[in-house]
Amino acid sequence: MNDAPAPDRRGLSRRGLFGLAGAGVVGAGLGTGITAGAHNANASASGAAASYPFFGTHQAGIVTPAQDRLHFAAFDVSDITREELIELLGDWSYAANRMTAGLGAGSYGPASGPYDAPPDDTGEALDLPPSGLTITIGFGPSLFDDRFGLAGKRPDALIDLPHFPGDALIDTLVGGDLCIQACSDDPQVAVHAIRNLSRIAFGRASLRWSQLGFGRTSSTTRAQATPRNLFGFKDGTANMRAEDTAEISKQVWVGSGDGPSWMTGGSYLVARKIRMTIETWDRTALREQETVVGRTKGVGAPLSGGTEFTAPDFAATGRADEPLISDSSHVKLAHPSSNGGATLLRRGYNFVDGNDDLGRLNAGLFFLCFQRDPRTQFVPLQLNLAKNDAMNEYLRHVGSGIFAVPPGAANGSYVGASLFET
Amino acid sequence: MNDAPAPDRRGLSRRGLFGLAGAGVVGAGLGTGITAGAHNANASASGAAASYPFFGTHQAGIVTPAQDRLHFAAFDVSDITREELIELLGDWSYAANRMTAGLGAGSYGPASGPYDAPPDDTGEALDLPPSGLTITIGFGPSLFDDRFGLAGKRPDALIDLPHFPGDALIDTLVGGDLCIQACSDDPQVAVHAIRNLSRIAFGRASLRWSQLGFGRTSSTTRAQATPRNLFGFKDGTANMRAEDTAEISKQVWVGSGDGPSWMTGGSYLVARKIRMTIETWDRTALREQETVVGRTKGVGAPLSGGTEFTAPDFAATGRADEPLISDSSHVKLAHPSSNGGATLLRRGYNFVDGNDDLGRLNAGLFFLCFQRDPRTQFVPLQLNLAKNDAMNEYLRHVGSGIFAVPPGAANGSYVGASLFET
Repeated sequence: MNDAPAPDRRGLSRRGLFGLAGAGVVGAGLGTGITAGAHNANASASGAAASYPFFGTHQAGIVTPAQDRLHFAAFDVSDITREELIELLGDWSYAANRMTAGLGAGSYGPASGPYDAPPDDTGEALDLPPSGLTITIGFGPSLFDDRFGLAGKRPDALIDLPHFPGDALIDTLVGGDLCIQACSDDPQVAVHAIRNLSRIAFGRASLRWSQLGFGRTSSTTRAQATPRNLFGFKDGTANMRAEDTAEISKQVWVGSGDGPSWMTGGSYLVARKIRMTIETWDRTALREQETVVGRTKGVGAPLSGGTEFTAPDFAATGRADEPLISDSSHVKLAHPSSNGGATLLRRGYNFVDGNDDLGRLNAGLFFLCFQRDPRTQFVPLQLNLAKNDAMNEYLRHVGSGIFAVPPGAANGSYVGASLFET
Repeated sequence: MNDAPAPDRRGLSRRGLFGLAGAGVVGAGLGTGITAGAHNANASASGAAASYPFFGTHQAGIVTPAQDRLHFAAFDVSDITREELIELLGDWSYAANRMTAGLGAGSYGPASGPYDAPPDDTGEALDLPPSGLTITIGFGPSLFDDRFGLAGKRPDALIDLPHFPGDALIDTLVGGDLCIQACSDDPQVAVHAIRNLSRIAFGRASLRWSQLGFGRTSSTTRAQATPRNLFGFKDGTANMRAEDTAEISKQVWVGSGDGPSWMTGGSYLVARKIRMTIETWDRTALREQETVVGRTKGVGAPLSGGTEFTAPDFAATGRADEPLISDSSHVKLAHPSSNGGATLLRRGYNFVDGNDDLGRLNAGLFFLCFQRDPRTQFVPLQLNLAKNDAMNEYLRHVGSGIFAVPPGAANGSYVGASLFET
């Protein structure tokens, strides 16, 4: 992933520096952009010390082994120029590269630098290892308008999502010009990343909506055990894995003939905040729960038999020749065989946002998925589920976003360079 | 901690069972109450397998090594009888004992039992170890009224908290007849506990307010490194530790002469949801931040010199004979020497609840503290801070609760037995 050109950026932009320095006390001699991971003595492949390079062919945080914690944020860009937007993306990339290596967002760090200026990092991750942090940046449909001269650059695949049956979207949880997905095995590290990137954006972009997630609901590598969602079932058993490189190339990465060349090597992210009415679910019989999912609650085996990773047999029938796996079950409707072979890479997280006025936990699934083309992947799949899935009785889609996730930045460059410079 | 009488409870109450079984399909032959930890083959002193007994002289979750994650919930009791309230506390204690041992909330578990009944556990923690789960139950002032014949049992120390200068409490984040503090090193385990206890309470008590916390802001044992709050500073350096048994006895546990005997061995919990205006804080100079806190941001040394655990020297002066540690600094005002020797045991957590309409992270500190008598500990200390602390400029207290935390339950008994049965 590090076969990219040498760095040419030299730190935060003057704008970013002025923003951080408040009244304008700017330190001289900021460090150069670091090479990904080079200063992280503890870099290793697993555990709290896990560290993933920010720069590379693809952005990290897509096929990276799914970390346990999430902080996702969508931003509105302020009334700035194209050049200022490019500068913001440069500042974000500079800081993201540092933070994924376990360093502070700026070269001084949270506890040193000029005493009369605000620190260039907020400090709550000061003693923490990289914790597998990945920072993934995306561009929403609304970015592609006349403000930044991008109206002609919008990929056809970056559609406005249609209204799906049963959608109950809340305006304040929809859309965004930009998004950042921060994943880490330590929530404090993920929060630190979003906080510092928001701070760097001050005056240039502001938080529109955001979401913390505490338990991953998908595995993205074979080594990871299948986690459980808040329905209590294993989730993501059939998810594709990073090891399936041919499948990943076919289903996740945008190919060179797929649309504008600036997206080659990128992917499309769809985010859906799905409230689960868990109190109602919890009052249904075990039989009904398993029928709705199409798998057993314990080991997660398909109701046609076997163990977790046994392929479901949708033709198998039981008493009165009824199919063992119901036609309206989630496993049947989400299966590629019900969707013309379409599938997608899932990276969801459980969430609980306190409780509502009726004393019900405000809980659910923050569904994130990556794909080569949402027109042939998320959209038909979600239409199929929204119309037919027996699980809908217990779900309500309240938040939504779609983002073009450009390819990774070359070492020392910035995410989106392919969009602005070609 | 296990020198208590043998268990005499035999599982969930009929009410609890009917609640779980929905239409009334009740399984026969529920298991007996288990001995704390006895069925947990992986019990050990640290890591994900750490397991703390629910039954014992004191409730767990007070001097227990502070776990990394929190789910706190306050409940309103419904229109039920005294006997039904006792049954609820029995059902909670039965389930809490099981869950802290890594078992399901009920004896069937999430994936077995009668197929036509709802499972007696929701399942999302099915494959997870105990993860150091503790469940701590408290009684709010409003419980002590005529509904349950408790009006004469209210301890004098269980005061209504006064209004503190600068309080900006939100009605929906205040009070509660009952509270449960669930701490664990895995957020999914903490959430599972609150969810299942809420479920068991269905029709008897309902969630009033609740809070997730993701990063502990105190250490409670010497082995734990000092964590950082969202101001980026080490927090809880001067916190008392479980090893300080004489200090814990003096400051945390209610003594036999302190008030009603049912509270002997218990403690008083004060919870405060404190919003931090981190965006404003982040724009202040490092010098100002350190002056406000009274410590350095890096190692957390007092501004009078030394390292993190050096005692602050409030008499030390510098240029123009000004004290090196400001009189309005947090470390000075919170120090026992400024509060007639009063101190308390802190167990706070960082939180981020999305963002507000202005694009600011809704972030802060969920402050939890335990003490022998809030009238001489939290109240004067908070009055002192609320009036004088330079940090107030960056804080807003939005939620508040006070709870009497009874002593631990004897094996097989229930939390609160000392209140109802003496």
